[in-house]
Amino acid sequence: MSTFRVWAPMPKKVQFQCDGQVFAMRQEAGGWWTVEIAGFQKDSDYGFLLDSEGPFPDPRSLFQPHGVNGLSRMVDHNHFEWDDTNWQAPPLPSAVIYELHIGTFTPAGTFEAAVDKLDHLVKLGITHIQMMPVNEFPGVHGWGYDGVDLFAPQHTYGTPELLKRLVNECHKRHLAVLLDVVYNHFGSAGNHLGKFAPYFTKKYLSPWGDAVNFDGPGSYEVRRFFCDNALMWLRDYHFDGLRLDAVHAIIDTSADHFLEQLAREVNELKATLGRNLVLIPESDLNDPRLLWPPEKGGVGLDAQWSDDFHHALHTVLSEERDGYYKDFGSLADLAKALKQAYVYDGQFSRHRCRNHGRPPEGLLGNRFLGYLQNHDQVGNRAKGDRSSCFMTVGKLKIGAALVLTSPFVPMLFQGEEWGASTPFQYFTDHQDPKLGNAVRQGRRQEFTAFGWDPDEIPDPQAWETFARSKLNWSELTTGDHADLLNWHIQLIHLRQSEPALKNGRFDLIEILFDEKARWLMIKRESIVIFCNLANRSQKLPFVGEARSVIESVDGTTLMKDAIHLPAESVAIIKL
Amino acid sequence: MSTFRVWAPMPKKVQFQCDGQVFAMRQEAGGWWTVEIAGFQKDSDYGFLLDSEGPFPDPRSLFQPHGVNGLSRMVDHNHFEWDDTNWQAPPLPSAVIYELHIGTFTPAGTFEAAVDKLDHLVKLGITHIQMMPVNEFPGVHGWGYDGVDLFAPQHTYGTPELLKRLVNECHKRHLAVLLDVVYNHFGSAGNHLGKFAPYFTKKYLSPWGDAVNFDGPGSYEVRRFFCDNALMWLRDYHFDGLRLDAVHAIIDTSADHFLEQLAREVNELKATLGRNLVLIPESDLNDPRLLWPPEKGGVGLDAQWSDDFHHALHTVLSEERDGYYKDFGSLADLAKALKQAYVYDGQFSRHRCRNHGRPPEGLLGNRFLGYLQNHDQVGNRAKGDRSSCFMTVGKLKIGAALVLTSPFVPMLFQGEEWGASTPFQYFTDHQDPKLGNAVRQGRRQEFTAFGWDPDEIPDPQAWETFARSKLNWSELTTGDHADLLNWHIQLIHLRQSEPALKNGRFDLIEILFDEKARWLMIKRESIVIFCNLANRSQKLPFVGEARSVIESVDGTTLMKDAIHLPAESVAIIKL
Repeated sequence: MSTFRVWAPMPKKVQFQCDGQVFAMRQEAGGWWTVEIAGFQKDSDYGFLLDSEGPFPDPRSLFQPHGVNGLSRMVDHNHFEWDDTNWQAPPLPSAVIYELHIGTFTPAGTFEAAVDKLDHLVKLGITHIQMMPVNEFPGVHGWGYDGVDLFAPQHTYGTPELLKRLVNECHKRHLAVLLDVVYNHFGSAGNHLGKFAPYFTKKYLSPWGDAVNFDGPGSYEVRRFFCDNALMWLRDYHFDGLRLDAVHAIIDTSADHFLEQLAREVNELKATLGRNLVLIPESDLNDPRLLWPPEKGGVGLDAQWSDDFHHALHTVLSEERDGYYKDFGSLADLAKALKQAYVYDGQFSRHRCRNHGRPPEGLLGNRFLGYLQNHDQVGNRAKGDRSSCFMTVGKLKIGAALVLTSPFVPMLFQGEEWGASTPFQYFTDHQDPKLGNAVRQGRRQEFTAFGWDPDEIPDPQAWETFARSKLNWSELTTGDHADLLNWHIQLIHLRQSEPALKNGRFDLIEILFDEKARWLMIKRESIVIFCNLANRSQKLPFVGEARSVIESVDGTTLMKDAIHLPAESVAIIKL
Repeated sequence: MSTFRVWAPMPKKVQFQCDGQVFAMRQEAGGWWTVEIAGFQKDSDYGFLLDSEGPFPDPRSLFQPHGVNGLSRMVDHNHFEWDDTNWQAPPLPSAVIYELHIGTFTPAGTFEAAVDKLDHLVKLGITHIQMMPVNEFPGVHGWGYDGVDLFAPQHTYGTPELLKRLVNECHKRHLAVLLDVVYNHFGSAGNHLGKFAPYFTKKYLSPWGDAVNFDGPGSYEVRRFFCDNALMWLRDYHFDGLRLDAVHAIIDTSADHFLEQLAREVNELKATLGRNLVLIPESDLNDPRLLWPPEKGGVGLDAQWSDDFHHALHTVLSEERDGYYKDFGSLADLAKALKQAYVYDGQFSRHRCRNHGRPPEGLLGNRFLGYLQNHDQVGNRAKGDRSSCFMTVGKLKIGAALVLTSPFVPMLFQGEEWGASTPFQYFTDHQDPKLGNAVRQGRRQEFTAFGWDPDEIPDPQAWETFARSKLNWSELTTGDHADLLNWHIQLIHLRQSEPALKNGRFDLIEILFDEKARWLMIKRESIVIFCNLANRSQKLPFVGEARSVIESVDGTTLMKDAIHLPAESVAIIKL
């Protein structure tokens, strides 16, 4: 006997359909409907009829083998055989995170294929994988941020079983796994949720579709939906934490913000499971309250994606100043980012045309992720070109050194470790031609505003755009790629062996720089990082006894009161 | 030589018009326009032409003698002769607040006429007047929440000079004066602000018109507009504090919430002036963060309007259960309100269909205002009838006793002290017939949904609706009115003479009640309040030595182990 339940206060009548049969459902308190049925196969497909229309998939479907508009597949989470008893993810201060996208990480683009590349990540020194969203989204390929079936792994990536296998294989290799989840909006295609219940609100406008109802009538169940989703990934799939997409777009004015509830519930699960679980929001607010403990009025999340360090680093290395980069560009900005993560801590932002941020008082550096690239910063460029397409190897090595010796939790984006030549472009697969066209046109307009020729913008709906974004693993051992890979391995090794690099102590960092001469020196206790960003060799002040020197380019010379660096190079001295 | 400046990034050309002459203005950084002109009278009328349209009044106009669509009058704030040197408002824990509406407080409905009634308030024992909004709103009468010229006192109430005179007269009588200000929306009629600058946003929907732009591009100046407005009332008009209307409708997701900025700036002014200034938000969020200090992640405001105590008390006394009253009704709710202000501190609210509130940890009772009536709770009833229209004198006396012996800062609404027979109805005076009609129809629809005959609902646009809402001071000395007035005077005197009633110590309050027998006992250290809500006399348990007894009805009898109370009566015992 199985019980099926669905929250559907909107329709007057709800029926359960399974293997072609239709069953009446009983209305319960609070807008729930329920039915008990015996005799179905474990993996039957089912759906709900709402006022005789449908069938529509289960909003909490655990698998959608036929896509977002198909029937839902029953899944039993209890029969996978896990090999990770007593597994504990390393704490974030010791982490080196690797962001990957299942569809493009390997040629096959599946959970199964990803397993074959795990040993590469182990060799690189990675401690945490962070998967871009794997929830069911429209079509057969996409970034995953248009998800509508948040409890179901994307069927073109593989089954729930295969996703568990991937996590299991990671844990066997001492790799922790984080999952990117999107709680700030739903995709618009295949989105049937609004027919069931008040998942959406008109009170706020979301940049990506209807705003989610976190604080209006019915919100107690909407919040349960998301909390239960988070708990499922952590409990049933053994994920070690969640990256929370764009939490600045979660608008909730109630006295108990949704993120506070989520943090409490994950903390309870943590205690129950005895496992180290983390929540890592992406936030554009520069608001330290996300990280402050509840006693200080904070949400108490573990660490946050913060773009200020990225923007400061990217502008210094690339000299790009368009769009949001106009707020950055000086070594002073980069130094400020290295000292407190937020460059904008309350002052006026020209790009935003308003004051932005708040001082991140009392927070360690390892409460922030630091990166030179991520899926957004690459993929949201007109052509999805990586830093390796427009920066010299010298600059890339400086960038890698600054990320991997930073006070932050460093993160790499798939392929960054070898300066992959493949782009990571914006790709979608909307089945509705109207929506597909709107996305295509929107993308063109976005970049023609910055002076791009619209024909140069890759078509997000084209299969080729997806295909060319897949990593080319054959280049890994060749030329500059191999050199860059070794540089990353060397830096991660250094980071893991030097406690001074991992302690996150902003207060112990000393920085010197010369804006005009283009050099920067960062002292982190016994480790000093010297960067020459200029395209000529130059001397930087240095007095001390060097135990060892790691150099990105041959030719670093230690002199009596200076260090001589070749053009576009970095040297790391252990005192 | 006078300099005129206006923030107007929207138009391409701005001109200054004064006394019929037009002057070009010079564009400055940040969207400001400026002009220096000599030779005008002090009280000239002026406006701005935007791209040759207009003239429109100054968004920061200090006086609108011809209404919201007329020209602005120049005002010099520096020449009023104040008599209140060294004036200090009493601290809130000692306050008894009196909410009044200038237009209906006296027959003339002006600042000047209000002066004549101040001695009545002094005699009653009031310490703080709280004026409903006096900013310029459309038409000649209205509640004031449709204001558009937030820096200008409503011209039908009097001039800026006369408003200062009223405040000055209050201070001479040791009455503090609070002003109700509306920062969550602007009125729609006569609202020209959107032509000047991005005062509004489409990101959020306000229940009362366009949402104010507190966190989007240009918001730094919008926030300055409101902060400067607050500082003006406190500095130039000598108000002792502000009541902030419906702060739950101020949507600001930035890291530095507008209310935090406002609180900081008012605190700075407080230090500069050396005067006791307070900010009292009205909030529907049951969120203690408004009151918590910044160290605890709070905004640090002084006290808040909180309706839970009102609703709990009103439902117990009236037995009404419609609309939001359905969430209240038991003596247990009333007891919880008396112990921590918020009845809803996180649990499910049937009316809101969601969880509501958060425990108000660490806050004293005198951080909340407590009231049996206020302009909303009276005026938002279908016919604006006061409690005195539907409660017995016995119930009114119990209500008054519970408010005036409560741990909260007690507040009365004009005329409540004598159970005024006049209603306080919803009245407007929109000049645009379409808008006037929409308001009229909206009001009818709101109440027909609750089963009212639409013809019974007073027409908000009718002059008579305003006229009949004016207090009738001639009834003050007659029958039950005089009796009620004396009861209020007696209770306020008791409150002011008993520190136990003013200390706000929730933790020291002991409460006993019998839901079925309808009695309630509240012990506040040496003061015990016995309420018999039943319509028959009954015995309540009491053991102790009474120093004195204050009774609302003759016939209270102290027995060996009980106190015998007449039907619908309250007795206050000093131990």
